[in-house]
Amino acid sequence: MISKSQITHVRALHQKKFRQESGLFLVEGSKAALEVLKGGHPFVVESIFGSADWLDKNAATLETFSETTFETSEKDMERISALSTPSDVLLVLKEPAEQSIPTPIAGHWALALDGIRDPGNLGTLLRIADWYGITDVYCSEDSAEVHNPKTIMSTMGSFLRVRAHKCSLSDVFSQSSKIPVYGALLGGKSVYDTDFTTPGFLLIGNEAQGIRPDLLDFVSNRVFLPGKGGAESLNASVAGGILCSWAIKC
Amino acid sequence: MISKSQITHVRALHQKKFRQESGLFLVEGSKAALEVLKGGHPFVVESIFGSADWLDKNAATLETFSETTFETSEKDMERISALSTPSDVLLVLKEPAEQSIPTPIAGHWALALDGIRDPGNLGTLLRIADWYGITDVYCSEDSAEVHNPKTIMSTMGSFLRVRAHKCSLSDVFSQSSKIPVYGALLGGKSVYDTDFTTPGFLLIGNEAQGIRPDLLDFVSNRVFLPGKGGAESLNASVAGGILCSWAIKC
Repeated sequence: MISKSQITHVRALHQKKFRQESGLFLVEGSKAALEVLKGGHPFVVESIFGSADWLDKNAATLETFSETTFETSEKDMERISALSTPSDVLLVLKEPAEQSIPTPIAGHWALALDGIRDPGNLGTLLRIADWYGITDVYCSEDSAEVHNPKTIMSTMGSFLRVRAHKCSLSDVFSQSSKIPVYGALLGGKSVYDTDFTTPGFLLIGNEAQGIRPDLLDFVSNRVFLPGKGGAESLNASVAGGILCSWAIKC
Repeated sequence: MISKSQITHVRALHQKKFRQESGLFLVEGSKAALEVLKGGHPFVVESIFGSADWLDKNAATLETFSETTFETSEKDMERISALSTPSDVLLVLKEPAEQSIPTPIAGHWALALDGIRDPGNLGTLLRIADWYGITDVYCSEDSAEVHNPKTIMSTMGSFLRVRAHKCSLSDVFSQSSKIPVYGALLGGKSVYDTDFTTPGFLLIGNEAQGIRPDLLDFVSNRVFLPGKGGAESLNASVAGGILCSWAIKC
């Protein structure tokens, strides 16, 4: 059984305020949890809350975590979970000490996200980055929170490999003015005809407003994803996936 | 003010059972509502619940709907909304009488979805279909429900133009055996090298299991979306978007 203070502690981490103050966040679900416990990433496992069955099934993996592993009843899992359908395991992770924003490197692809507000979209975009071998994602300050449980869930484990940096995109672009910025825009050149020979930033704008006007000057290549139907636009993460698939031909 | 029985009626439509029995479903949000009220689709508007402000602002559009329009307090909007953040307008729509599943037409693109379980993914895929000018989407019987409020929300209005047909995909494929089926599969030919000259079905499988084994015999072209990072897979709707962008060059 877990204590009341443990329940209060985990439940506090449902709130952004407490996640940001503590640097702690939640990872739920067996698949993601097992990927975390394998190691090879900069996060520290603070605690593991699992059902008796789950702990039993994964006893070998958990050997080195005995002091931070807590058997948790179904009722308590419901109490601590941030999901509508609780899983049989929940981890509390600590993010590593904040480092400086890495300078983008010429010859490498990076994703730049301008005001992606939906945690599901942000998580899906991190998963896309991971799929295409992108390790650094630059997110404007007003983007959704990377450690929101919905973001983490949507990454399907990719948060372990892809680093999302909250920063001023205009600062990043102006510091690396020789690196091209390919921006997904309605009035651009067709993605089919765009020359993606030189790697750079793939820039995706906000779900409703697109790329902010003050970033447009940094866009060296305006890229349009052609369509012919009735929809006004594509979902931001779908647009990101399509842009990656044309730019980064693996 | 709206009556208790109206509240009960709309709240019942949060449940799949009542939606299916009645053929009624909910559309929330100003943008989607205004698109519905413009007409040009087969759905009948049963009732319109709007805040005083919203009704006032859209008085001209609402003229012909006066008998089915109901001013709704903020508190009652919270009661009838299926969303965590209620909008200022909610419509109850009636779907048209069920028609037979249309026979796929050679020379046209169609989407086929095998067990897409997440309403958000299903809605996003209908929006993608709409963007690429696809009007018919064939969904296996166990797919998410088209009239689930989350599906409708994710379509961003595309449910008005794209018809989703629940059916047996193997029946549809066997009836149209001359039409190619391009299936997104891990072991296929790269999407970069696939010949998409002949239009056909673009088949996307379930979020976790992919395309069911018993459908694989119908797949004439196995298509792989190459990646090089650590993610095990792409999100199903992102994969659908990428496949459409390579197959249907608008």
